[in-house]
Amino acid sequence: MVKLPLYAAGISATFTILLIAAETEDAALLKQAQEIFQPLPKDMATVEFPITPERVELGRSLFFDPRLTIDANMSCSSCHQPAFYGTDALPKPVGVKQRAHPRHVPTNLNPGTSFIIHWRGDRTNLEDQVFQALTSPITSGQPDENAVIDRLARIPGYAPLFKAAFPDDPQPMTLRNIATAVGAYERTLVTPSPFDAYLAGIQEALPPTAKAGLAKFINTVCVACHNGVGVGGGMYQKFGVAEDYWNATGSDPIDKGRFDVTKDSNDLYVFRVASLRNAAMTPPYFHDGSVTTLPEAVKVMARVQLGVSLNDADTGDIVAFLQSLTGELPVNFATAPVLPSGAVVPAK
Amino acid sequence: MVKLPLYAAGISATFTILLIAAETEDAALLKQAQEIFQPLPKDMATVEFPITPERVELGRSLFFDPRLTIDANMSCSSCHQPAFYGTDALPKPVGVKQRAHPRHVPTNLNPGTSFIIHWRGDRTNLEDQVFQALTSPITSGQPDENAVIDRLARIPGYAPLFKAAFPDDPQPMTLRNIATAVGAYERTLVTPSPFDAYLAGIQEALPPTAKAGLAKFINTVCVACHNGVGVGGGMYQKFGVAEDYWNATGSDPIDKGRFDVTKDSNDLYVFRVASLRNAAMTPPYFHDGSVTTLPEAVKVMARVQLGVSLNDADTGDIVAFLQSLTGELPVNFATAPVLPSGAVVPAK
Repeated sequence: MVKLPLYAAGISATFTILLIAAETEDAALLKQAQEIFQPLPKDMATVEFPITPERVELGRSLFFDPRLTIDANMSCSSCHQPAFYGTDALPKPVGVKQRAHPRHVPTNLNPGTSFIIHWRGDRTNLEDQVFQALTSPITSGQPDENAVIDRLARIPGYAPLFKAAFPDDPQPMTLRNIATAVGAYERTLVTPSPFDAYLAGIQEALPPTAKAGLAKFINTVCVACHNGVGVGGGMYQKFGVAEDYWNATGSDPIDKGRFDVTKDSNDLYVFRVASLRNAAMTPPYFHDGSVTTLPEAVKVMARVQLGVSLNDADTGDIVAFLQSLTGELPVNFATAPVLPSGAVVPAK
Repeated sequence: MVKLPLYAAGISATFTILLIAAETEDAALLKQAQEIFQPLPKDMATVEFPITPERVELGRSLFFDPRLTIDANMSCSSCHQPAFYGTDALPKPVGVKQRAHPRHVPTNLNPGTSFIIHWRGDRTNLEDQVFQALTSPITSGQPDENAVIDRLARIPGYAPLFKAAFPDDPQPMTLRNIATAVGAYERTLVTPSPFDAYLAGIQEALPPTAKAGLAKFINTVCVACHNGVGVGGGMYQKFGVAEDYWNATGSDPIDKGRFDVTKDSNDLYVFRVASLRNAAMTPPYFHDGSVTTLPEAVKVMARVQLGVSLNDADTGDIVAFLQSLTGELPVNFATAPVLPSGAVVPAK
C-alpha cells in the first residue's frame, strides 16, 4: 500500500519528462521552421506595383470578364477558377478556339510569392504575364492591342472604372493599364493558412501529423528548394536530379523547360520551383500536370530530386503538413463581381 | 398686402389638389400592377421538386463543376455566369469542342417563374433540362450516362455529398439525381427586386420614371404577354405578330421556333415569352441574341408584336421600369463553392 504513491509519482515524473521533451522538440521544430519559412504578408504590393482600391476593383472585373478574348467566352478565371483555388483541375488547359496550352496552370493565389512568372520564367512579373496574355494566340486570340481595347470601349461601364483607377492618365484604357489593374487585384489574393499561424508561434495551429510531416519535410531536405514565404517559388531547379523526371511521371512529351527559352544547356529540364501553398487543393501536379494525386507527387519529388524512396507513412505525414498550407479563399476571389453590362458580338 | 395670404392659400390649395390627384393615380397604378403581376416567392420549390439543404449543396457544386463535361472545361456556370446574372453576354454560346449552341442563353435566375424550359419548350421542367444537358453533344459532349458518372466517381469528395442528398437511395450517384440536385439548387436562385417591394405596397421602392414606365408598359399592352410572377415566362407566343421579326432584328438564320419541335403550322415562329426579371443585366436579347441593347429590344418588341412605334422618351421610361426588375445576385450563386478536390485526365 505504501508503494502506490511512489509508483504513481514515478509515472508522473516519467510523464513530466516526456512532456518536457515533447515541448522542447516542438519548440525546436518551430524555431527551425521560422528560419526556413516566412508567413504571408497581408498583400503582395511592391513599390513598383502599389495597390489602390480603384485598381483592384477594375482589375477584379477585368479578371472575370470573358469579353476581352477573341470569342468573348474565356476570361482569366476560365483557367484560374475560384472553385479550384485558382487552377482548373486539368493537366493542361484548353485555350481559345480549342488551342492547347503547353503547360499546366499554376494557381494565381499568392502570386507575388514566386520570384518569376510561368514555369520557365519567360514573364518578368505578374503584370508582364497579364500584358502578354492579353494578345497571346492561345490565351486571348486577339490579333492586337486595338482589338482588346475596342471590346472594352463598347461596354459603357468600363470608362469610369479606368478613369478612377488611372486618374492622371489622359487615355487610361490601355493594355498596360489593364495589366497593372489585374496585377493589383491579384496582388490582394493571399491565403493565410494554419501554417502561417504556426509560424507566428501558435503551436496548436498544426495537428501532430502535420508537425511530424513538417519535420520529415525538413529532414528529407525538401526545404532545399521549397522554402521562404511561398514554400517554394523562389528559384529555378532542374526537374530530375537523381533520375530523369519522365521515368517517374510518365510525361509525354518531354518538356525541356527553361532550355527552350535560353538555349543554355545548363537550363535543360529546368523549371521554376512551385510554391506549395494550397497544393492540396490544386491537383494535378508538375509543369505538365502529369501526376494526379498529392501523395504520388510527394513520392515522385523525393525520388527524382533527392533519390529518396518515401514509404506511405512518411508520405502521409508530409501530405498532412502540405494540407496545413491551405488557406481560405479570399472573398474578392470566391465572389464573382457584377460586370459592367454590355453584349459583345464577336467577329465571325 | 392682404392679398398675399389668400394668394398663398390658393397656391397651397392647388398643390393639395395636385398631390391628392398624384396620390390617387399612384394608388391606382399600384392596384393595377398588383392585379397583373405577383411578387417572387422565397424559393421555387414545388411538391414534386422539394428543396433540401443537402441537395442544394450538392447541386451547387455540380453546377460549378466543369469535370462533368467531355473536356472537363465547361460547367453549367460557363454559360450561366454569375458575373452576367446567369447569362454569358453573347448572342449564342459556344459549347464543348467549339460546337455552336443554336439559341441564346436565358438566365437561370428565378427559373421556376417560367412555365416551360427553353425557348421552344422542348424541356418539360428544370430537372429535365439538366438531365438532357448532361449528355447533350453540345452542352456536355459525354457519350452516355456512364461517362458522366465515371468522372464523378473518381472524385472522392462527391460520394458523401450524394449519400447525404439522397439518403434512401442505395445507388445515389445517377444522372437523375444529378438533375434533381442541380434543379434544387437553381430553385433557390431568386432575385427579389425593387418592383417586388413596390408590389408589396411600398410606393417609394420605384422612382417616378420607373412608375411612368410601368404605366406605359401596361397601357402599350406589353402586359398581354409579360405578366405574372416572371413578368413573362408564362406562355408561348408568336414572335412577329404585326410584322416578321427578322425585319426588325436582322436575325440570320431565321428560326422557326416551336414549329421545329411540333411540326404544327400554328407553332411557326412561336417561342416562350421571356421573363423580364433582370433583363437590364442580361443583354443581348431574344432567342438568338440578335439585339444588343435594352432600349432597342423594347422598341423592336413594340413594333413587331404590337405595331407600335415607341419614341425615345417612352422607351426610356419603360427601360427605367425594367431596371426596377433587377435584384441582387443570390450569395450562393455569386460565390463559387470550393469543389471536391480531384484532377481529371480527359480522354485524348
